[in-house]
Amino acid sequence: MRIMFPFAAIVGQDQMKLALSIAAVDPSIGGVLVFGDRGTGKSTAVRALAAVLPDIETADCPYHCDPARPDEGCELCRSRAESQIPQKTEAMRVPVVDLPLGATEDRIAGSLDLERALSAGEKRFEPGLLAKAHRGFLYIDEINLLEDHLVDLLLDVAASGENVVEREGLSVRHPARFVLIGSGNPEEGELRPQLLDRFGLSVEVRTPQDLATRIQVVKRRDAFERDPAGFAAEYEAANAEVRDAILAARRRLRGVAVPDATLEKAAQLSIRLGTDGLRGELTLMRAARALAALSGDAVVGWSHLAALAPLALSHRLRRDPLDEAGSTTRVERAVGELAAA
Amino acid sequence: MRIMFPFAAIVGQDQMKLALSIAAVDPSIGGVLVFGDRGTGKSTAVRALAAVLPDIETADCPYHCDPARPDEGCELCRSRAESQIPQKTEAMRVPVVDLPLGATEDRIAGSLDLERALSAGEKRFEPGLLAKAHRGFLYIDEINLLEDHLVDLLLDVAASGENVVEREGLSVRHPARFVLIGSGNPEEGELRPQLLDRFGLSVEVRTPQDLATRIQVVKRRDAFERDPAGFAAEYEAANAEVRDAILAARRRLRGVAVPDATLEKAAQLSIRLGTDGLRGELTLMRAARALAALSGDAVVGWSHLAALAPLALSHRLRRDPLDEAGSTTRVERAVGELAAA
Amino acid sequence: MRIMFPFAAIVGQDQMKLALSIAAVDPSIGGVLVFGDRGTGKSTAVRALAAVLPDIETADCPYHCDPARPDEGCELCRSRAESQIPQKTEAMRVPVVDLPLGATEDRIAGSLDLERALSAGEKRFEPGLLAKAHRGFLYIDEINLLEDHLVDLLLDVAASGENVVEREGLSVRHPARFVLIGSGNPEEGELRPQLLDRFGLSVEVRTPQDLATRIQVVKRRDAFERDPAGFAAEYEAANAEVRDAILAARRRLRGVAVPDATLEKAAQLSIRLGTDGLRGELTLMRAARALAALSGDAVVGWSHLAALAPLALSHRLRRDPLDEAGSTTRVERAVGELAAA
Amino acid sequence: MRIMFPFAAIVGQDQMKLALSIAAVDPSIGGVLVFGDRGTGKSTAVRALAAVLPDIETADCPYHCDPARPDEGCELCRSRAESQIPQKTEAMRVPVVDLPLGATEDRIAGSLDLERALSAGEKRFEPGLLAKAHRGFLYIDEINLLEDHLVDLLLDVAASGENVVEREGLSVRHPARFVLIGSGNPEEGELRPQLLDRFGLSVEVRTPQDLATRIQVVKRRDAFERDPAGFAAEYEAANAEVRDAILAARRRLRGVAVPDATLEKAAQLSIRLGTDGLRGELTLMRAARALAALSGDAVVGWSHLAALAPLALSHRLRRDPLDEAGSTTRVERAVGELAAA
Amino acid sequence: MRIMFPFAAIVGQDQMKLALSIAAVDPSIGGVLVFGDRGTGKSTAVRALAAVLPDIETADCPYHCDPARPDEGCELCRSRAESQIPQKTEAMRVPVVDLPLGATEDRIAGSLDLERALSAGEKRFEPGLLAKAHRGFLYIDEINLLEDHLVDLLLDVAASGENVVEREGLSVRHPARFVLIGSGNPEEGELRPQLLDRFGLSVEVRTPQDLATRIQVVKRRDAFERDPAGFAAEYEAANAEVRDAILAARRRLRGVAVPDATLEKAAQLSIRLGTDGLRGELTLMRAARALAALSGDAVVGWSHLAALAPLALSHRLRRDPLDEAGSTTRVERAVGELAAA
Amino acid sequence: MRIMFPFAAIVGQDQMKLALSIAAVDPSIGGVLVFGDRGTGKSTAVRALAAVLPDIETADCPYHCDPARPDEGCELCRSRAESQIPQKTEAMRVPVVDLPLGATEDRIAGSLDLERALSAGEKRFEPGLLAKAHRGFLYIDEINLLEDHLVDLLLDVAASGENVVEREGLSVRHPARFVLIGSGNPEEGELRPQLLDRFGLSVEVRTPQDLATRIQVVKRRDAFERDPAGFAAEYEAANAEVRDAILAARRRLRGVAVPDATLEKAAQLSIRLGTDGLRGELTLMRAARALAALSGDAVVGWSHLAALAPLALSHRLRRDPLDEAGSTTRVERAVGELAAA
Repeated sequence: MRIMFPFAAIVGQDQMKLALSIAAVDPSIGGVLVFGDRGTGKSTAVRALAAVLPDIETADCPYHCDPARPDEGCELCRSRAESQIPQKTEAMRVPVVDLPLGATEDRIAGSLDLERALSAGEKRFEPGLLAKAHRGFLYIDEINLLEDHLVDLLLDVAASGENVVEREGLSVRHPARFVLIGSGNPEEGELRPQLLDRFGLSVEVRTPQDLATRIQVVKRRDAFERDPAGFAAEYEAANAEVRDAILAARRRLRGVAVPDATLEKAAQLSIRLGTDGLRGELTLMRAARALAALSGDAVVGWSHLAALAPLALSHRLRRDPLDEAGSTTRVERAVGELAAA
Repeated sequence: MRIMFPFAAIVGQDQMKLALSIAAVDPSIGGVLVFGDRGTGKSTAVRALAAVLPDIETADCPYHCDPARPDEGCELCRSRAESQIPQKTEAMRVPVVDLPLGATEDRIAGSLDLERALSAGEKRFEPGLLAKAHRGFLYIDEINLLEDHLVDLLLDVAASGENVVEREGLSVRHPARFVLIGSGNPEEGELRPQLLDRFGLSVEVRTPQDLATRIQVVKRRDAFERDPAGFAAEYEAANAEVRDAILAARRRLRGVAVPDATLEKAAQLSIRLGTDGLRGELTLMRAARALAALSGDAVVGWSHLAALAPLALSHRLRRDPLDEAGSTTRVERAVGELAAA
Repeated sequence: MRIMFPFAAIVGQDQMKLALSIAAVDPSIGGVLVFGDRGTGKSTAVRALAAVLPDIETADCPYHCDPARPDEGCELCRSRAESQIPQKTEAMRVPVVDLPLGATEDRIAGSLDLERALSAGEKRFEPGLLAKAHRGFLYIDEINLLEDHLVDLLLDVAASGENVVEREGLSVRHPARFVLIGSGNPEEGELRPQLLDRFGLSVEVRTPQDLATRIQVVKRRDAFERDPAGFAAEYEAANAEVRDAILAARRRLRGVAVPDATLEKAAQLSIRLGTDGLRGELTLMRAARALAALSGDAVVGWSHLAALAPLALSHRLRRDPLDEAGSTTRVERAVGELAAA
Repeated sequence: MRIMFPFAAIVGQDQMKLALSIAAVDPSIGGVLVFGDRGTGKSTAVRALAAVLPDIETADCPYHCDPARPDEGCELCRSRAESQIPQKTEAMRVPVVDLPLGATEDRIAGSLDLERALSAGEKRFEPGLLAKAHRGFLYIDEINLLEDHLVDLLLDVAASGENVVEREGLSVRHPARFVLIGSGNPEEGELRPQLLDRFGLSVEVRTPQDLATRIQVVKRRDAFERDPAGFAAEYEAANAEVRDAILAARRRLRGVAVPDATLEKAAQLSIRLGTDGLRGELTLMRAARALAALSGDAVVGWSHLAALAPLALSHRLRRDPLDEAGSTTRVERAVGELAAA
Repeated sequence: MRIMFPFAAIVGQDQMKLALSIAAVDPSIGGVLVFGDRGTGKSTAVRALAAVLPDIETADCPYHCDPARPDEGCELCRSRAESQIPQKTEAMRVPVVDLPLGATEDRIAGSLDLERALSAGEKRFEPGLLAKAHRGFLYIDEINLLEDHLVDLLLDVAASGENVVEREGLSVRHPARFVLIGSGNPEEGELRPQLLDRFGLSVEVRTPQDLATRIQVVKRRDAFERDPAGFAAEYEAANAEVRDAILAARRRLRGVAVPDATLEKAAQLSIRLGTDGLRGELTLMRAARALAALSGDAVVGWSHLAALAPLALSHRLRRDPLDEAGSTTRVERAVGELAAA
Repeated sequence: MRIMFPFAAIVGQDQMKLALSIAAVDPSIGGVLVFGDRGTGKSTAVRALAAVLPDIETADCPYHCDPARPDEGCELCRSRAESQIPQKTEAMRVPVVDLPLGATEDRIAGSLDLERALSAGEKRFEPGLLAKAHRGFLYIDEINLLEDHLVDLLLDVAASGENVVEREGLSVRHPARFVLIGSGNPEEGELRPQLLDRFGLSVEVRTPQDLATRIQVVKRRDAFERDPAGFAAEYEAANAEVRDAILAARRRLRGVAVPDATLEKAAQLSIRLGTDGLRGELTLMRAARALAALSGDAVVGWSHLAALAPLALSHRLRRDPLDEAGSTTRVERAVGELAAA
């Protein structure tokens, strides 16, 4: 079992850590887009977060469904639950699946097991990467280089939590609930607005510019690579704190209230920014609620909205040729104006 | 069985709801195109309408034909009807089929069951998405990104109500009567006029701009997602009203009269707008008749034409470089002038 | 058996009806190109003409050859004729085959029956769309979107009346005599002059502009769709007249004389218009002869030429950058000048 | 057996008839390119010439080799000759093979008989179009639309008289001696000079401009199509004269002398015209020799060169931006200057 | 066994020899990019370095893992180690694998053994080039012509030391630790910055300009080719020195210290040069440590950084339109400034 | 056995004959590029040279290795040599292999014998064109039209003398030593400098401009084609002289000395011309040595360099926008300057 860089040992990158934590608390938020410089540890952070989470329980099923929630499981799990035969369960690390550039729809969604079909004349489904990512994370580096119809497919499944395969005479439907993380460099081509809008949150990461931070990053990275086990042990306690905070927030989430006044603020922000559709404010509301849960607040207020507006709205702005400010700046300015109003 | 967002709980979007209801009353109207902003619940509305309609009766046949209308059924159903053997019937939800981006002709129209051909040396037809959509809805998101020859195929089948497959040694013909719903964002490329003309109605949907509506949408959406069953129960009665109105209109439809004066008005409108061919006024007449049936009117009059002209004609206008108004505005202006004349 | 819209119930569209009737009298004329607006019932007219013609007699052969003309039949039919075994014959509707956009050469020309080859190790020919169209019509909507080599193939077979397939180890030759009808919108790309020239006749169809005609079209169309059988019965007698006229013309055709003076006029017209090659005047002469046969005239004269020159020559003109008139107008002007000369 | 239009009934087109006759006398001349208007009967002329030639003798071999010349035959024929078993021979028409647009290398050169390979596990060669054309003509309409590597392959085989197939584990070599005829319209794209140079002769055909000729063409064409057998009978004697002249020339060919003075004239012409390489004058010399043989002359002189220079050289000129005359005119001018010198 | 040109006999090319030696000491440095003139012996140098290294020990496993390090071995090796059955080992030369232009992902990563699958119905993995390169070098000539997704794949595996294949029903994971060497000519297209950044070091090689060097290169090359064995013998001792130095450095590496002051210098250099992310300084630190080990120094100091900064940073600079100096010059200038500061 | 045009009967073309002879003496020179006019007998010259060489001895092996040099032979030949079983040998003509345009990598390098694999479940290598060319010549007409990766493959094999095939589960390595001859017309696209540099020598051939030469060429060509055997007999003695000269030079080659002063001159020439890398002077030195051997000289001197510099260096020059002279002229000028210096 490969040892991961500890989440708690990541230096800086606060927005990214926030976005990932929010998605860990409420995965229905709809995926996270990470823009920015190469070599800033985006993939490391995703893997680190997954490693911080507690192992998941699984029974012997091809989609590692949750044996405690047969209603959300695959057909096999549901039928087992009905037959009430007790299942042996196993612990499994939260999966992090990398989508390789050049992956085909077959490989992503799953396909006919050709060898079986040819040798045994039997049609069997060969689960794809979406199945592997169930209950975990699906990470796509340079998502802007992926073909649109694949991004679309990934977003559809991420949104519905279900992968439906209808082809080659197969008709399969299995649960695939995961957090989609896409990273991209906006200098190398952009996603269509249609696709951007379907991501829940977005963050920008930049290379740190102060010496101390940089030295610390390099030292920790080198220390980890020279002695992974020893380094991980040092951060075990800090990592446990992160884990506990997320688990507590998950428990609290349903109880957090969202007053109409907060919804009105969210709508005012969106109108001021001219975002299309209502996904922006819906996501903003949900993310703010998850933040409240993380912070232990019972009610979602302006502070939560203000903290998350840049993450929930900046990738949903239309380009404004008369306003040269970056989209994050434009959201922050609108937040400021509304706070002042 | 997944619970759908209730049709009656959709806030605003009146034109879209009208177009869908008209198509539910008279499916021969020829499909609906929905233009507009992302994130405005287009797909939700289609699913919601289908869920509002009563279940369909089916017997055990691969195309879920209507056992009560063997003359419109597949070969199997017709031969069963002749043999007068009673069939056990089952209820089935009105199907809503999503056409995935990147779907191939095989998957859409159906194809040879390769596995069967290879293992058992038997040629059997594997029904495609068109078969699945029979007696329901076929929804295509971003139809402007679909290849022209596929849009063409879909429109051919939607128009004839029959899918004819002639290839790989197969010669299959089965009923496929469905309402085609295509959504698209005109900013991302347009359909050829040739294809636009073959859609019956078109509507535009926009993000609502008043705070109250927006808050209501977000609240209902969040409430539904947190407790689908409870939310659906609240709107059960309102949904039943929609269902009853559509069923009543279907019964009344054949009795509604279309006087020559009304046809003349429809033709005058089309000539004034310079639409090519006569599909525009034929559709306008039929849609107006369906509206009359929905409204309980016995005769189609100017008011029905006026209400539906933007839906039936605006996607059939040629671009006019000297007239910067949108096509809907141009239709409404022509309606106004003709009303005044 | 699907009921077709009656040919006699088509309102207006005289040039198109003329061209189709000429092709029905003398199919060697070489196909008809129909240019013009969408939604003007081009496909309906072809189907209607085919339905007006008397059923064809066939024996049990894969190409539905004419049992009365074994010399023009396939190998099977010729060998049966030699063995003088009497065949049971059956009536069959004149076929109208639609060439779908995206059709491949395999599907058009026929191909190896793969399933048979794989399962029984036997090479058998799977007839294609050309075989289906034998003794009928092959209709290609938007022919300008079809690949050139396929148009070429279709024209070759239409000209020779024979489909020769040499590939995949197959060496098949079967009769395929049909009238090729191509429709296209010149605004969406044109055929190469090389291909245009190989079509016999061309016509333009436009949306009617007078109210009465439009209302009549819409009413008839709606009446037909609501009660196909009743509507068809109304036009049965008128349809029979069309049928009788075509059958009489076929019988008369060989007896119609073409004087040298008429040929000289045809040549003068072609020289005046500068058409390449001699296919134009050959077709004009034949079409004029067919018109004389339809009109019951024994000799082809100037009036027949004048009536058919626009159909036979306008698609064979070179573009003249100094003459902005449409090609039909240019032909009509040349006809006028020659009449005056 | 389909009746061909008689060669002797072709009106005009003298250059083309000359080129085809020369190629029939000495096929090593290297193929004929025919440029010019569509609808001028190019394909008809090739078929007519082939039909005028006497049938060829064949024994039962897949390449219809000449049983009288086993040294030029395929392996089977050579081994039969060695074993001195007498073979039953059959007469066969001189083949004319059409190369369809879109033909693949497989179909042209021949390929593995897949069916045989799969069913009987035996590797057998499936002869292609080159094999069919052996001892006859290979006609390519619109050769400028054919892919370069296929033109190259055709020219290689035409030059060597042998088709060598090395692939799919096949190693086959069979004779393929034929006259390559390519037709093309220079307005639709040109061949690379590299390929042009490898054709022996070229001619241009134009639509005749005098009325009498045109009427005659149309009348003959129509007469032939209405009664092929009767029309062919009328020209039987004239056709026999053409056949006798070609056969006599073939016998005389080896005896015709080419004096150095004539070679010098040919070289002077080529230098004056600046043709690359020496294929031009080599072909000119050979074609002039064939013409002398046709004319019954024992020695090749200036008149033969002058008559054939436009056919042998005009497609080998470099484009001269300062000389707007067509290439045929440039050759004729050079011929005139040299005659005057 | 082919004799390689001796590493010690390479004339000049000091930067390249340095980069290769560093990579041989610490392969985790991440690959070497070699830019520059053709014909300068880049491929020869890589092969020469590999030949200088001592043979590796292998047991009978498809990935030639190190039997002394089962924890880093493939599954088979790990299970053997657990079973404690002694293995016979064999010596093997350090592999140098050439990635041919046009190599497909299959060939690189490995694929299903199709023949086995078809004949024995058994799924077996056919190792690819990555497996062959394990414990050695993977050389890619003209890497700039390789498709991006393949470069990406190579870099992923080089970074993780593991090849994971998930497709065609295979799920294989095997060690693949190798030094990636890519050579390219920047005049023929460049790598994306994203990919450049993932290479550890880069060097430029140029044709030597002094006569003596050139004569020496040509003489040695010619002498080697005429008598490889004799020439190699001459340099045996010098080659042994190189080998010993590298082995000694590998042993010393873990003991070399990197003081914070050195890290600060590395960070200052990177900030001054504006490189994105922190991979640059991480690599610079590691490469400097390897150089210290090679030089026998216990502590990494400024001199090591200064020597390696051009190799570690110059391919990570953004293009500066205002600074026309080459990137190596820009790094050297920054090194000078920092030394002076 | 086809009779070849005699090498000694080739009129003019001295540079090309020199280059081919040098390559016949020392095949390690690395291939010959022939630029120039079409129709100048390039392919004829290669075939003629091969025919002039003495037959090669072969034993029964798929690569026709030299039984006298088992150390350079294939695996089979080496194992036979070890077992010391005497082999029956056979004479074989020096092979000349034509690489057809459109040849695939499979066909060139060899591939899995699919038929064998499918029928007998046995993996066997099907040797490709490279195997056929072993110990002979590989001729590529219009090499500039060949895909780069194939040219690359050919050059790799030509340089190493070994073909390594690693794919489809095959792992084959067989000797493939041949002289690569590429012909091309620089007007139709050029090779990348990277590829040009890897060819040993280059020559230009032009159409002769004097009458006497041209007449002689045409007469010889015609005489050969009319009576190949008789014509070849006439040149038998002259051809034998060429053969003897080449064989003598091969024997002398190893003894020819290359003084440092000559190497210095070669380097000075290259520096003056600014060629990249050192392949130019390495080749120049070797070619000059082969010329000395052909001339019977014991030491390589300036005259040999001067004669071969245009052949060895002109295709290695960078384009000089300020110097309009052709590259051959530039080399000759540099030779002149250096001679004068």
